[in-house]
Amino acid sequence: MDGRRKFLSFLSLLLALFFLFVFTWNTSLPNSYNLNSAKRVAEGLELKPHHQTHRIESHASDTPHHPLDPLTVQELNRVRSILSSHALFRASKSYALHSVVLEEPPKSRVLTWREGDPLPPRQASVVARVDGLSHVLTVDLESSRVARVYMGSLLGYPTMTIEDMNTATLTPFLSDEFNRTVVERGVDLKDIACLPISTGWFGKKEEKRRLIKVQCYSMKDTANFYMRPIEGLTVLVDMDANQVVEISDRGKSIPIPKAADTDYRFSALKNAHHKMKPINPISIEQPKGPSFSVQNGHQVKWANWEFHLKPDPRAGVIISLAMFRDPDTGELRNVMYKGMVSELFVPYMDPTDAWYFKTYMDAGEYGFGLQAMPLDPLNDCPRNAHYMDGIFPAGDGRPYVRSNMVCVFESYAGDVGWRHSESPITGLEIREVRPKVTLVVRMAASVANYDYIIDWEFQTDGLIRIKVGLSGILMVKGTPYVNMNQVPNQEDLYGTLLSENVIGVIHDHYITFYLDMDIDGSENSFVKVNLKRQQTSPGESPRRSYLKTVRNVAQTEKDAQIKLKLYDPSEFHVINPNKKTRVGNPTGYKVVPGGTAASILDLEDPPQKRAAFTNNQIWVTPYNKSEVWAGGLFVYQSHGEDTLATWSDRDRPIENRDIVLWYTLGFHHIPCQEDFPIMPTVSSSFALKPVNFFESNPILGISPNFEKDLPVCQATAVSS
Amino acid sequence: MDGRRKFLSFLSLLLALFFLFVFTWNTSLPNSYNLNSAKRVAEGLELKPHHQTHRIESHASDTPHHPLDPLTVQELNRVRSILSSHALFRASKSYALHSVVLEEPPKSRVLTWREGDPLPPRQASVVARVDGLSHVLTVDLESSRVARVYMGSLLGYPTMTIEDMNTATLTPFLSDEFNRTVVERGVDLKDIACLPISTGWFGKKEEKRRLIKVQCYSMKDTANFYMRPIEGLTVLVDMDANQVVEISDRGKSIPIPKAADTDYRFSALKNAHHKMKPINPISIEQPKGPSFSVQNGHQVKWANWEFHLKPDPRAGVIISLAMFRDPDTGELRNVMYKGMVSELFVPYMDPTDAWYFKTYMDAGEYGFGLQAMPLDPLNDCPRNAHYMDGIFPAGDGRPYVRSNMVCVFESYAGDVGWRHSESPITGLEIREVRPKVTLVVRMAASVANYDYIIDWEFQTDGLIRIKVGLSGILMVKGTPYVNMNQVPNQEDLYGTLLSENVIGVIHDHYITFYLDMDIDGSENSFVKVNLKRQQTSPGESPRRSYLKTVRNVAQTEKDAQIKLKLYDPSEFHVINPNKKTRVGNPTGYKVVPGGTAASILDLEDPPQKRAAFTNNQIWVTPYNKSEVWAGGLFVYQSHGEDTLATWSDRDRPIENRDIVLWYTLGFHHIPCQEDFPIMPTVSSSFALKPVNFFESNPILGISPNFEKDLPVCQATAVSS
Repeated sequence: MDGRRKFLSFLSLLLALFFLFVFTWNTSLPNSYNLNSAKRVAEGLELKPHHQTHRIESHASDTPHHPLDPLTVQELNRVRSILSSHALFRASKSYALHSVVLEEPPKSRVLTWREGDPLPPRQASVVARVDGLSHVLTVDLESSRVARVYMGSLLGYPTMTIEDMNTATLTPFLSDEFNRTVVERGVDLKDIACLPISTGWFGKKEEKRRLIKVQCYSMKDTANFYMRPIEGLTVLVDMDANQVVEISDRGKSIPIPKAADTDYRFSALKNAHHKMKPINPISIEQPKGPSFSVQNGHQVKWANWEFHLKPDPRAGVIISLAMFRDPDTGELRNVMYKGMVSELFVPYMDPTDAWYFKTYMDAGEYGFGLQAMPLDPLNDCPRNAHYMDGIFPAGDGRPYVRSNMVCVFESYAGDVGWRHSESPITGLEIREVRPKVTLVVRMAASVANYDYIIDWEFQTDGLIRIKVGLSGILMVKGTPYVNMNQVPNQEDLYGTLLSENVIGVIHDHYITFYLDMDIDGSENSFVKVNLKRQQTSPGESPRRSYLKTVRNVAQTEKDAQIKLKLYDPSEFHVINPNKKTRVGNPTGYKVVPGGTAASILDLEDPPQKRAAFTNNQIWVTPYNKSEVWAGGLFVYQSHGEDTLATWSDRDRPIENRDIVLWYTLGFHHIPCQEDFPIMPTVSSSFALKPVNFFESNPILGISPNFEKDLPVCQATAVSS
Repeated sequence: MDGRRKFLSFLSLLLALFFLFVFTWNTSLPNSYNLNSAKRVAEGLELKPHHQTHRIESHASDTPHHPLDPLTVQELNRVRSILSSHALFRASKSYALHSVVLEEPPKSRVLTWREGDPLPPRQASVVARVDGLSHVLTVDLESSRVARVYMGSLLGYPTMTIEDMNTATLTPFLSDEFNRTVVERGVDLKDIACLPISTGWFGKKEEKRRLIKVQCYSMKDTANFYMRPIEGLTVLVDMDANQVVEISDRGKSIPIPKAADTDYRFSALKNAHHKMKPINPISIEQPKGPSFSVQNGHQVKWANWEFHLKPDPRAGVIISLAMFRDPDTGELRNVMYKGMVSELFVPYMDPTDAWYFKTYMDAGEYGFGLQAMPLDPLNDCPRNAHYMDGIFPAGDGRPYVRSNMVCVFESYAGDVGWRHSESPITGLEIREVRPKVTLVVRMAASVANYDYIIDWEFQTDGLIRIKVGLSGILMVKGTPYVNMNQVPNQEDLYGTLLSENVIGVIHDHYITFYLDMDIDGSENSFVKVNLKRQQTSPGESPRRSYLKTVRNVAQTEKDAQIKLKLYDPSEFHVINPNKKTRVGNPTGYKVVPGGTAASILDLEDPPQKRAAFTNNQIWVTPYNKSEVWAGGLFVYQSHGEDTLATWSDRDRPIENRDIVLWYTLGFHHIPCQEDFPIMPTVSSSFALKPVNFFESNPILGISPNFEKDLPVCQATAVSS
């Protein structure tokens, strides 16, 4: 080793330690460690920032009140203690807990449970890596026993721990070659920020090793390092061995884009040239307070809705037992047993060395909930919001608090619930209008650069709208070009030139939702109500054609593999064939797609195989406790053998059964300059809408607004 | 005539007079008359309710300030006076003015006009029926001359006047047969309400006569007479002759549905069984007032947007000269010269005698603006709204005021303009979120039973969202059935059994928008940015496929006849090929479809031929002053020879020209019980979104919310 090398090596170690410290101190994780340090951490050698301790203390006495309540701090600690004395873990050289969540009691137990009943036995479902092997365990908290040990499939790995990701980004600094390359690209090692990028699976190369790719950026002169890629430099890291496997650099000739105009922080923009005529303060105000309550921490009651709400490290939030109190009968009726994000798929459209593998599956690879940061009060959610914390375990099983992870608020945008005016044609003096107020459950996951805002919006008329907003920062590619006039006509940029030396690469987003509908009970059917053009017979009518409905009740899963078709339109109902309205229609809900996009990648392309759950927009499967994650339980480096598509291809009966509806919402994103340096939110949605679920309009009886009920407001003295 | 007949005949006359009186007194029209009474009205014999006089007086001194300002009360009176002394009208036996609106100055004049300049000559465009012939005239208000007289095509008729519709509904009562039939169906003549239903065009039968079909309902015991059809009874009326042409009754065996549970008025619901847990008052509050201004009655300025806004009797509202002040340069940049609803198409899916013709084209047949009733403050629009009146002429040319026809307000629903949090992966402490506030322009047209809520929503980031909400009351069909178990398996109900004896008939809604985009000037091109799957070559990449963009600049109109395709996706840009961003992308906007539906009726079906403008979702035509109404200027009973489809088929060049974009938003509506007796709002939208129009995110510089800026509110004492 020559002197320069030695220096770089030493520097990298220093940096690694520095970053480790900064990370530990800054984040709301109680501690940071890699697999090798897990035991040290367990011995209490880690740093414990004060604010974190405080947060944990505020939840120290939480107790579960409902069979679906998430594991509490005490329960998580108990799981950790049970496992640490378990033979498997005691005998191990190293282990990490990749997931510790409530093992939900059987559906039948939950459905028959009533407030006041004792809770079903509390159990934890644990995914652990022990000496390099994945295990799935059930820990019984009453008997302290580990009820089941299952050695996970080798064809994929569990969701990374935060510590995995953190360690991965530090590993390249252990490589002299990496450090030298970075310096040769003109970047100070102290200015580097690196991202852990899931590798996907593309064949033998990725087999039998838990791999990740690390790419780095210059954070000099900007907090928005994402806009300053060290293009083409990719470090393949073995996450278990904590070693650099391979370094690829194909970007030596590509300059690192400038920092100018990339920082988006309010504090950094004081002298910015961007001028926007300011908007006066505006606020949603409820002088008598919100109309909803959150009982026992998780039970939300609003208008005629009741549901259970909890944060989840993988799904983000889980809505359970959504029920609607019928305005006619007063009866609380089941609508949805469970609804959540099951998986995401975000393929980038660039086949080159540093990009082809970017085909993220954010829930199963990164943990959609793990990446949901604290919401910013007044900006992420309006003033009237209620916030809910997430309690998650770190890799060593110690609980930490993700504060303000979910918010719940009533929204009123000035929209209309229903209305009718009589026109001069009939001459009646009628003008009846009802305002539309909704209840929104929101979380925002920041999966590195991208931000996903997930809304579950409940309407008083029984509709549930599920909305996905995309914001955050583009994943961009460095380029030698500074103007489109330099680009040869035939050259494919794989995206849009957004700024000098910056290309926004084309990509798609697919968000697949798990929707266990229980319309008035668990036995439901899926009905495709097809609108078909019917030609009239000669002489039958002056009309040549009209549309008629053709109802097809899906018998088996393949009948319910649905591709949306604009020119062969259908409605998609989940009905209860055993319950009819007064006039004899089956009660039901329909899924109402909105704007969406479909993946048109080659079905045999490895990423598309792994994300085969996006091959259709709608699927219906029989309820199966183990079929929850559309890409498979172990989606990291999965090969695609255990996806929703494979389950559905079994073609099981689904008529008059407990069924699960799956819906995938898609976006194509061709970036544009407006997305630089941070993207205005783009959103799309779909809805679950009652269809003959009620005897009539359930909000017929709501009240209009009256001036006397509205608040009297004034600007505060301070802000004059 | 026997005694009973005489009595009925007398009764009908009494009723006709009664309705005429009620109508005149109740509506905001200054007077009501039929064609034969036009001259009497002109002589001042009509009733003049006090409030109407008051309303007119509040606008008596309005003066135009902008070349596009609508005709004022004084100008409308002047047009009426000029026409009444014109030979054509003086010599006539009867006439009616079907439209009197500003003849907009040439686009070039408007675009070069600056505040302070004298207005271009004020002219009125008049559509008149004179002794049974349609005329299009231009009245010059300065010279008092009628500049052009054009005898309209015989293949269609102008938009009905309100008086046409009113008279049509009274005409059946002149028929003994009708009166007898109604009584035989068990309905008191005093309980009848009738609707004027445009006949469409289905061949020779409808030729050379201005026809309308009238169907009637029982309003006994309910204000919601729409739910009580006298099914199958159709009266064909000649609107010019004011005569019953034919009466058809195929519904004698069909009972009139009961009134119970149909009334939706708040005052009628006091003892209703519908229970909904009440929601606390909620309001959008702006302690320092709204951030927008409406100057000179029509010029709206908000954030970086400026546009001209006016009510229009046919289109509803017209947005003109929408411009955005560039946050980088301060320059006011053109986006859209004119945007409005051009036409609607609402075909019902029932080929039988009383239903086949229901294929409404609401703008051209009924006047989408004429049917826009006063908005209900606090319910149609939030508390912070500004209202704009419409000044329209009655059939005799006298101006009347449609008060509060349009509202403008700032909306904040708690949504996010842009956001980013750094995740624990990078460890930076960043949480930057900006609230999303928009400006909404709204009107609601009540075309008899149906209510259309049209929103133009402007975002600070340059996006314009156009949203259509559907509410109001279904057009229903009587049936003998009270339960689905009575319906033979093969019988097609043409809809859904909603309540005892009530079927909601399947129908579609298409709303076609005229969008004269002027991106940084009038010369624009339309570019289809197609996302194509590209297979990689063997060995090129571990990926088998990716998506790449293929840009096609439309040369002629047929290149821009676009059917949306989920599995062959594209973006649709209107660009200025002569203006590039700093890095060389052409500046542009794209049209972003949302959830929509396509008409799949037989292209040769007469209604579809007349509404051929719905054959594609997108069209682009070269700007042509006379191509504004997608179904043709005279759409009533049109044959479909003069639609957007025929114009586009001329296949004119559209590259680097002044072009107009057309977008059709569609809905399939299979009614459900929740739509009874009044429908919760269903909405869909599309957007015009900047794409490389700005150098970067134009809202980078906006401020987050701070607690100190938000209002201090309290419930009023009254409401405690």
